[in-house]
Amino acid sequence: MKRAITIPGFLFSGVTCGLKKSKKKDLALIFSERPATAAALFTTNRVKAAPVLVGMRHLSQGRVQAVVVNSGIANACTGARGIRDAEEICREVALRLGIAPGLVLPSSTGVIGVSMPMDKIKKGIEKAVAGLSPASFAQAAEAILTTDRFTKVSSTSFLLGRKKVRVAGMVKGAGMIAPKMATMLAYILTDAAVDPGCLRAILRESTDETFNCITVDGDTSTNDTVLLLANGFAGNQPVRWGSGGEVTLMRAVKETMKGLAIKLVEDGEGTTKVVEVRVEGARSVADAKKISFAVANSKLVKTAFFGEDPNFGRIMAAIGYAGVPIKPDRIDVSFDGVTVVRRGAGASFKEREASRVLKRPSFKVRIRLGQGKKAASIWTSDLSHEYVRINSAYRT
Amino acid sequence: MKRAITIPGFLFSGVTCGLKKSKKKDLALIFSERPATAAALFTTNRVKAAPVLVGMRHLSQGRVQAVVVNSGIANACTGARGIRDAEEICREVALRLGIAPGLVLPSSTGVIGVSMPMDKIKKGIEKAVAGLSPASFAQAAEAILTTDRFTKVSSTSFLLGRKKVRVAGMVKGAGMIAPKMATMLAYILTDAAVDPGCLRAILRESTDETFNCITVDGDTSTNDTVLLLANGFAGNQPVRWGSGGEVTLMRAVKETMKGLAIKLVEDGEGTTKVVEVRVEGARSVADAKKISFAVANSKLVKTAFFGEDPNFGRIMAAIGYAGVPIKPDRIDVSFDGVTVVRRGAGASFKEREASRVLKRPSFKVRIRLGQGKKAASIWTSDLSHEYVRINSAYRT
Repeated sequence: MKRAITIPGFLFSGVTCGLKKSKKKDLALIFSERPATAAALFTTNRVKAAPVLVGMRHLSQGRVQAVVVNSGIANACTGARGIRDAEEICREVALRLGIAPGLVLPSSTGVIGVSMPMDKIKKGIEKAVAGLSPASFAQAAEAILTTDRFTKVSSTSFLLGRKKVRVAGMVKGAGMIAPKMATMLAYILTDAAVDPGCLRAILRESTDETFNCITVDGDTSTNDTVLLLANGFAGNQPVRWGSGGEVTLMRAVKETMKGLAIKLVEDGEGTTKVVEVRVEGARSVADAKKISFAVANSKLVKTAFFGEDPNFGRIMAAIGYAGVPIKPDRIDVSFDGVTVVRRGAGASFKEREASRVLKRPSFKVRIRLGQGKKAASIWTSDLSHEYVRINSAYRT
Repeated sequence: MKRAITIPGFLFSGVTCGLKKSKKKDLALIFSERPATAAALFTTNRVKAAPVLVGMRHLSQGRVQAVVVNSGIANACTGARGIRDAEEICREVALRLGIAPGLVLPSSTGVIGVSMPMDKIKKGIEKAVAGLSPASFAQAAEAILTTDRFTKVSSTSFLLGRKKVRVAGMVKGAGMIAPKMATMLAYILTDAAVDPGCLRAILRESTDETFNCITVDGDTSTNDTVLLLANGFAGNQPVRWGSGGEVTLMRAVKETMKGLAIKLVEDGEGTTKVVEVRVEGARSVADAKKISFAVANSKLVKTAFFGEDPNFGRIMAAIGYAGVPIKPDRIDVSFDGVTVVRRGAGASFKEREASRVLKRPSFKVRIRLGQGKKAASIWTSDLSHEYVRINSAYRT
């Protein structure tokens, strides 16, 4: 058995309170023995779930001591009652832990439009508080899942000055929205002491280069939350921007989040392949990202990946409608080094050789625009029968 | 048997020249006995197929006398040779018809990245010219198809002054791009005499309200072409903007194009349902369209339609990420009159009643934003297993 992930000062719990028909774990609790410096990013969707609205309010203080997550019900599109329920959940957790309700961050993921069964939740909270343990990271990571096929965790450690610092994260979400359920939720924890502004900057840049570089279905959930907590138990000098320590910490956070991001794509609904769409030679990173996303989100490109079909025409078409000025006759496209388009025209290539690349569980599509020096990568999945099966299966 | 569509002064032909393995018709010719006033819209994709580039050049003169369309090969991403081939096709048609090459509009649809087999094409042109007939509208409409399941034509007639005027159209394209093939091509013909500027305005507005209001997979092809030809054989006073006649003509053109547009969605790859996504109460038509398209293109919404699942949560999520400022708590959503969301929260509704609506082959999702008086409708299809099957099937 792999050794359990632990981070000094953090306790975890994952229990079943009966929100899922499957009786699987559905309530997770993360508790820091003292208030942690917190940075968070929430969904950009204008329809925000109640826990997101409440969480944004609590986050404004910059400190979090407990995170409570339920899976099975998203508490989204639930009106004023949803807000009251999310607030009551925070109060209940706070009461049992002896902390202020404003130090609790709530998250929910699951069916939209259904109200929370508060009796079940309250019993679950009681159970979760009773079960808190430094060794239950994996149980908490399991309790936040919905249609995910596996638990997704990642961790690393490094030296900051002479202090050992740990970074660990857990994530759920099969892309954005599962059939009954919704959302990407990510909780990244470190025992480093970090200045609040620096923590926010690290979260923003790391998210931009990891979670914001993946796509499964292109839909944005109402509940997305990425939270980074730093509780200072490592005893280091607080990391400040420009102190040098932030570079090391940023690298560790990025590494952790990158690991989680790739696992998200691997576990994407119906995924049989993980594909890196890399655009090089762009005038700006923004241009490179736009084109990568157009290719990575195209239903036609994704079904061709599933069909293991080196259909470069669909890739060229997606490049063309990405909304970036390009010169078609400068574009080269290759699959793991096998060139299929040269200067905008179909290259003479061995169909068999290209098909062999596409049979791999993971490969890279490299697009060279020949216009500048900027690049970006997006990780995507294929679009399979299984995706349609999962998402067309009746909700109830 | 239905009577053949005829338009005075136009001749048609649809033949097999051997571009498709299936031996189905693959070369269409439309010929006007005198040069027709022409207006056209071409793909906005920055990767444009050779015939589109050549066609744009020929169109700049504002007159077209012959349209030649091949299906099976798109002549896209074919470099300089592709341009030469498209030009040669125009010269060949012109030579055989005794007209100037600049009066020929070429179109291609099919596999991207493959060069045209010019020998086959030339023999096909010879055959097509020999077979021209006023009664072969349906044959031409058949020859432009690729993976389309049926021929899509529409026609109407009306009185302009005391002259009878006809409008008829044919279209191909299972949305945007088929597995091996590409493109939406539409040819609308009328025997009305129309001022060139007026014809362009009619085409633009009609396309905006018909072909630009449908979506199957959200991908934009490299070859899309919508052409409107008016040859004046009706003998009417030329229709000018502000003459009053343009209102009648516009109505007929829109009616014809709307009929074709709905057929395009019905024939969309893997379509089992045609859904109108109507957004009302928006601040502007642009806002209403943005939201309609976000909902109509969401893979999650489309798979829920296929699954006959009244999953309003996915619709709310798509509304939220459409990029339009909205007030979630003002939104109502209904399926053919069955309200599922009221003031942003799940309405208490009979699941069975809502599911019954979704079992219909065609229904309307009505979204009321409560913010203004503007509205827009987009017609979309569901996302089925068949879509994935068709598009993941190997190209060759």
